[in-house]
Amino acid sequence: MSSIEMEVFSNSQLIVLTVLMFIGGEIFTSMVGLHLRRLFKKNLQIPTTLEGFDSLSLIKFLGFVVLGYLLITHIVGIGMIVVYFLFISSFAKEILDEKGINLVTFSFFTCVSTLASCGFVPTNENMIVFHKNSGLLLILIPQILVGNTLYPSCLRFCIWVIGKFSKDHHNDEHRLKVDYLLKTSEEIGYIHLLPSLHSCLLVVTVFGFIFIQFVLICSMEWDSNGFSGLNSYQKVVAILFLSTNSRHAGETIVNISSLSSAILIMFIVMMYLPPYTSFLPLNEKQELEDHFRHLQRRKVRSKKAKAWQNLLFSQLSYLIIFITIICIIERKKMVEDPINFSVLNIVLEVISAYGNVGFSTGYSCKLQIHPPNDCVDKWYGFSAKWSNKAKIVLILVMMFGRLKKFNMDGGKAWKLV
Amino acid sequence: MSSIEMEVFSNSQLIVLTVLMFIGGEIFTSMVGLHLRRLFKKNLQIPTTLEGFDSLSLIKFLGFVVLGYLLITHIVGIGMIVVYFLFISSFAKEILDEKGINLVTFSFFTCVSTLASCGFVPTNENMIVFHKNSGLLLILIPQILVGNTLYPSCLRFCIWVIGKFSKDHHNDEHRLKVDYLLKTSEEIGYIHLLPSLHSCLLVVTVFGFIFIQFVLICSMEWDSNGFSGLNSYQKVVAILFLSTNSRHAGETIVNISSLSSAILIMFIVMMYLPPYTSFLPLNEKQELEDHFRHLQRRKVRSKKAKAWQNLLFSQLSYLIIFITIICIIERKKMVEDPINFSVLNIVLEVISAYGNVGFSTGYSCKLQIHPPNDCVDKWYGFSAKWSNKAKIVLILVMMFGRLKKFNMDGGKAWKLV
Repeated sequence: MSSIEMEVFSNSQLIVLTVLMFIGGEIFTSMVGLHLRRLFKKNLQIPTTLEGFDSLSLIKFLGFVVLGYLLITHIVGIGMIVVYFLFISSFAKEILDEKGINLVTFSFFTCVSTLASCGFVPTNENMIVFHKNSGLLLILIPQILVGNTLYPSCLRFCIWVIGKFSKDHHNDEHRLKVDYLLKTSEEIGYIHLLPSLHSCLLVVTVFGFIFIQFVLICSMEWDSNGFSGLNSYQKVVAILFLSTNSRHAGETIVNISSLSSAILIMFIVMMYLPPYTSFLPLNEKQELEDHFRHLQRRKVRSKKAKAWQNLLFSQLSYLIIFITIICIIERKKMVEDPINFSVLNIVLEVISAYGNVGFSTGYSCKLQIHPPNDCVDKWYGFSAKWSNKAKIVLILVMMFGRLKKFNMDGGKAWKLV
Repeated sequence: MSSIEMEVFSNSQLIVLTVLMFIGGEIFTSMVGLHLRRLFKKNLQIPTTLEGFDSLSLIKFLGFVVLGYLLITHIVGIGMIVVYFLFISSFAKEILDEKGINLVTFSFFTCVSTLASCGFVPTNENMIVFHKNSGLLLILIPQILVGNTLYPSCLRFCIWVIGKFSKDHHNDEHRLKVDYLLKTSEEIGYIHLLPSLHSCLLVVTVFGFIFIQFVLICSMEWDSNGFSGLNSYQKVVAILFLSTNSRHAGETIVNISSLSSAILIMFIVMMYLPPYTSFLPLNEKQELEDHFRHLQRRKVRSKKAKAWQNLLFSQLSYLIIFITIICIIERKKMVEDPINFSVLNIVLEVISAYGNVGFSTGYSCKLQIHPPNDCVDKWYGFSAKWSNKAKIVLILVMMFGRLKKFNMDGGKAWKLV
């Protein structure tokens, strides 16, 4: 849920936004990083050989694998959405026509936004307007996963497939590169390429979290207002979509504030967890920490920078400080309008901003205790009702959230589970 | 704030409670532990010599220092309370007479409860009834500190004073013991005897936290209802008392639910922090972890137990799971009575139980949105209004909180700051 109504954008503005989301996406930027490392090899202090193999040629190879991954996921994703609207659901097509949204623009925008975990959809109501279009939701669920939490596992799988293919076609150079990449995934210094065991356990963890959320939401919200009007099949798909989205994409299928508090708490935890959180055996955990420390050592050169970094508090402490500041700024509204401005809603908004998810409880006029006359319900996120000072703090939280990758060496957030 | 009205207890019942609080206190049990280690030396695997010194005689010496510490703090504490009621405030004495509480029983009960961080006071309203008796509050503030967060620093200081005294009187045996105790504080395996630097920084941290809370409460609540009717001096003392209590004792001077949310969030953090949390330079942090690992190694003998312990989640994860369970159990009340049954109040109650603090927001009939006719405000804690299932979960949280000392080796909670 965004803080503005999306339908104010014209077709060309949506196209510009699509391009921005694409080049701002995690996978795209990491690919650019790989190619830059290859071009400016002298500045980036990578070891020139890895076990006797030319590391630049490895990085070049990896860069093109990532490029291929990006192209295939986007082409297949956009194609499937277009096919769904043209041939499967005429009802969904009518909604777009009514809103005056171009089908191709919608498909590009939604696919890029989903793969980059932006959570924007060109409709005011986000995905709520399509909550009965189970087919569309089923198309989007794998896109959310391959573009975010499952990316390392899928990338490793793609490299492995290329290796198998090269072996069958006696392409020895490719086969060797693949072998090295799979064996020395840590040496290459690409943060999204994880060791074999971690890649496998990541899949287990991701589906484990989805399963836990699915069970909890089903057991608590099956007969609630949020999912009224849906048949059992549509409910299952909608809940599955919600469970998948809570980790990172943040596309909403239901009014978040209508869900019970226990589920909101679970969402807060899910949004807080870093994307590659995984249950690991203990000795592997140690290895992982060494891995991050290794990556870090390369980046931080001066002793001063390192000492400064070690003096920092943990991520969680900062988030609590941010939440406290927002509660101080909004203290008046919290007293006058305690149900909308509850601490839970503020925490959800802040952690959602920190995790770049975009879930929001919104603001509901009928939850006010002393309703004034001029309140009109909008599709805004909750933060749209905040004061400017509080919004600035929230923007800081978002930037802080984008920096968390660089702060991961201590593995503090990882240790939560 | 307890879940029952304290004035239902008779004088003899209060005496029994006093004895129970005394022998259940952290310092008393740790002293018994020291003496038991000395008596059953064979079972407890302590090194028989520490740098050439007989470790049993060291433990015996330490045991008697702790005994002296206990006696002096209690005698001085009880004496000061009695003197205050008899000679300083006749108004406070009248309150006790009105309630039919024996002065000596009150003094013993309050002093033992404060030193053991129990947070019980023999009045229904806890300390709120004495919120204008600044002198009494000033007497209790040091008791809260020496009995809990500052205990390691005070103990070390006492040992150092004994050393100075022995040196002046040429008591070489005592002087040697003191030197060894101060130097090899970690070897002795007494969890409350911390190294020199840590003991000093602990004092800084404790007063730092009190200062931050004091400033925040003053700036946000100076003119609020909670402190109305007090003059400036009484307000300063009351806020100081509240800031000191939030770490562990939990004696309330004001209706907690009347405070703003930002302060409640700060209280939750303060209650969550382990008593000996301290800002430490990085290399010291490493040493501390080694220290706890060292203590742990002695305790855990079987590999199986150790492996099991490592599989456990972090403390915070368990607390979140407990909170979610309570939210699921109380989901109906959370919808019908959202201001009393807010997630913030539940979190505060759970963390208060976990930290053995005893702060509670209570339950207020006038905050109900659909008030029934039969609601009567009581001096109960908030959890008194919970269902039995939720209460059982809260009891589990309390037991879990008491076990946290044994789970500290990983230092997970310590790493928060």
